[in-house]
Parts: sequence; structure tokens; C-alpha cells
Amino acid sequence: MRVNVVTLFPELFTTFSETSFVNRAIVGGKLVLVLEPLREHGLGKHRSVDDTPYGGGAGMVLRVDCVAAAIDAVEAGTRTHRVLMTPQGQRFVQPMAKALTEREAVTLICGRYEGFDERVRSLVDQEISLGDFVLAGGEIAAMAVIEACIRLLPGVLGNEESVSLESFSEENDGLLEYPQYTRPATFRGEAVPDVLTSGDHARIEAFRRQAALERTLARRPELVRDKGRS
Amino acid sequence: MRVNVVTLFPELFTTFSETSFVNRAIVGGKLVLVLEPLREHGLGKHRSVDDTPYGGGAGMVLRVDCVAAAIDAVEAGTRTHRVLMTPQGQRFVQPMAKALTEREAVTLICGRYEGFDERVRSLVDQEISLGDFVLAGGEIAAMAVIEACIRLLPGVLGNEESVSLESFSEENDGLLEYPQYTRPATFRGEAVPDVLTSGDHARIEAFRRQAALERTLARRPELVRDKGRS
Repeated sequence: MRVNVVTLFPELFTTFSETSFVNRAIVGGKLVLVLEPLREHGLGKHRSVDDTPYGGGAGMVLRVDCVAAAIDAVEAGTRTHRVLMTPQGQRFVQPMAKALTEREAVTLICGRYEGFDERVRSLVDQEISLGDFVLAGGEIAAMAVIEACIRLLPGVLGNEESVSLESFSEENDGLLEYPQYTRPATFRGEAVPDVLTSGDHARIEAFRRQAALERTLARRPELVRDKGRS
Repeated sequence: MRVNVVTLFPELFTTFSETSFVNRAIVGGKLVLVLEPLREHGLGKHRSVDDTPYGGGAGMVLRVDCVAAAIDAVEAGTRTHRVLMTPQGQRFVQPMAKALTEREAVTLICGRYEGFDERVRSLVDQEISLGDFVLAGGEIAAMAVIEACIRLLPGVLGNEESVSLESFSEENDGLLEYPQYTRPATFRGEAVPDVLTSGDHARIEAFRRQAALERTLARRPELVRDKGRS
């Protein structure tokens, strides 16, 4: 999987790409991460990429021509699936991560400043939002998308079973994950539930199933209701 | 505002804290960012922080005693508001960012690996999720929370009006932001709407209000409905 990132702050991705399993995915050839500095496509002596809004108002707006030039440069003639990171996009959910990993090449476009020219939307295939909150730019959102994707690539995490049983996965019926415990057996007066040390695998399985369901009903009842409908 | 982060990967925050307005907030004394390496509270020769789950199953579970020791160390005797980053938490939304900025000190706890001991939940005051997707750890989620918070701190962005008029803000009636345009006037055949170059401020205002409403109805109708109810 090749991921291109158009950004004003490529250096934000330095430690991200050098750390832990992201680095492992790159070194292992599962992920090619290409950073395209938007600044290099800026105009004039100051490599300016933004300008004041037509019609007035506060703040600066990212220019569509600079963004288009950066996309053209990083794609180098091969059209990729283009994703704009914006709080106005579709909310990012686990099935979208899976769908992105099935593409050969994805270009993530990170906005910055107060906003971008509306015509940037015409350049892209998809708009993704992390949620109903506002970041200063799309870089952290792009990292979240990349991290969610690459941990789904075969061989990256090294433990495929644990990916398939976690929260929101189909194999877990879309429920939240069951509670887990490890040593010490008692910590500040809180003990591990007896059933988990019983060695009775059928009871352990039943306990976990029940706990996942109860937790989901308490915290995210709509996940259980949606399941009932489908 | 002081933000403590308990993490296995403090180096992930290096370029984040050195970049742009995050760095400006730190240098300007608006933000104190303290990274507490969880590894330093690991056990034995290998500074181990995880162990196999009671009851069996795939993957490793983060130990509660190591997490508690890291929290105690970074708080240094003063209890802070403790937030666990987990996909099972409350979904992070803009008003939560505002509420966090009103606290003197917040400790963000980043999980890693397949999960953490259930008793970690007893140590914290709040659980936050970025959304219904799974990351490999809480670090990127913590950065998103920090970025959303510090851009709300007075004097960090340098343009308070633009913060108050953007998507999801109260001043914008909770609607998505209106479309923005800047130069060039025409790009690949797409021109800026005439009204924005008319100089007629009342018409521009009406156009923007209408466009924000139409966009919100098209993309996020529940934001308009919820408004009608309140």
C-alpha cells in the first residue's frame, strides 16, 4: 500500500514513521509513505500557499492551485484515490480503514489554517473527518487514518487473531471488547474475577461474551440495536 | 494548562511538540507538556509492562500496577484530571475540548498493545475515544485531544474570530462552516460565486448563512435537527 500525504508540515510525520510498527511496516515493505511538502508548491518569494477570502472575513484560505500542483507532483501521472481530511467529511469508521487498505495508492490531503478554497473539494474522491471537533490541521487526522489502516495489513502486527476479536470488528459482532485482566491478581483491593482463574474454558467464554454485551449496552446501546436490525 | 502524557512511545511526541503552534503554545507559556515514559515503570530486567491475560486468549495486556506507578510519578503528589484514551470511551467532541482547557492539569493515559487491565479504569476520571475505529495505541488520539485543546487557549492561534466562526462552534449555531474562496478567481473552469466579489456585505452574509445551512442539511442533517430540539 502506498500512502501519499500532502502537507505543510511534513516534519510532523518524522517520528511517526520512525516508531514501532509504522516503521516495521515501512521496513518490511508493506507500506510506502511519501510526504509531499505543500510549501514547495507555494507562490512567489515567500512560497505563499494561502490568501485572503473573497467576500471578506477573518483568516486565510488555502489556495486550490497550490493544492492541485502538490497532488499532481506526488501522483506523478498515476491517478490515486484522493482523500481530503476535513471536519466536514464523513466520519471515519473501521470499515473505511479496511476499504482504504484495499487500494493500491491513497493520497491524503491535509488542510491547515482557517480553511481551504471550496474548489479543493472538486479535486478529491472522498472527504474524511475524525469526528465533531476541530484540529488546527489535517496532519494528526491523517496519522490516525494511516495507523488504523496499516495495523490491518497482513503481517504488520504479528497477531492476526487479536485484530479480529477487538472492538468494532465483525468477528466480535460489532460489540465492544470484553474486559481483560493480567497479573497482579489483586491490586489495591481489586481482584481478578474468579471465573478467569477457574480453568473452565466454557465458563470463561460465557463470562466474556456476557461482559462484552453488558458493556456495550451500558456504553453504546446503539451498537446492539443496529445489530438487531441488520 | 499542564498536560501530562503517560506513554510507551514518548518519542512520538517529539516533532509534534516542536512544530508550529504547539511549539508556540509551549514557548509562550500557555502549555506545559510533560511526557512520562511508561517503560520506566516496567518490571524486571526487560522493564516489562504487560503480561498474558487471565483466562487465556491472544495478545498481551498492559499491567495496572505499571500504569498506576507512571501516573503517580507524573502527578508528583497533586491529583490531576485523568483521561484514558480508549476506543471504548465517550466520543470526543468539541465541548469536551473546551471543558478540558478549563482544568489546570490533565493526565492523558495512552494504552498500547491489545488492551489494558480492566482495573486501569478505576484509576481514571474520564475515558475518551476518537471514534469507532481502532488505533494501535492512544498516542495519536492524545495528540488530537491536545491539538483541539490548545488552539482554544487565548493567544495561541492569534485570530480569535476565526476560531469562534468555524464548524461546530456555538457562535456558528453548531452548523458546518460556509464555503470559502480565494484567488485565483477561476481555476480549471470553476469560478468564484459572483456574490462574493459584489462588495454587497448583506448579500454575502445571506449567501454564507444559506450555504452553511444547505451544506449541513446535505451532510449532517442531525446537526440541524438537534438544534431545532434544543
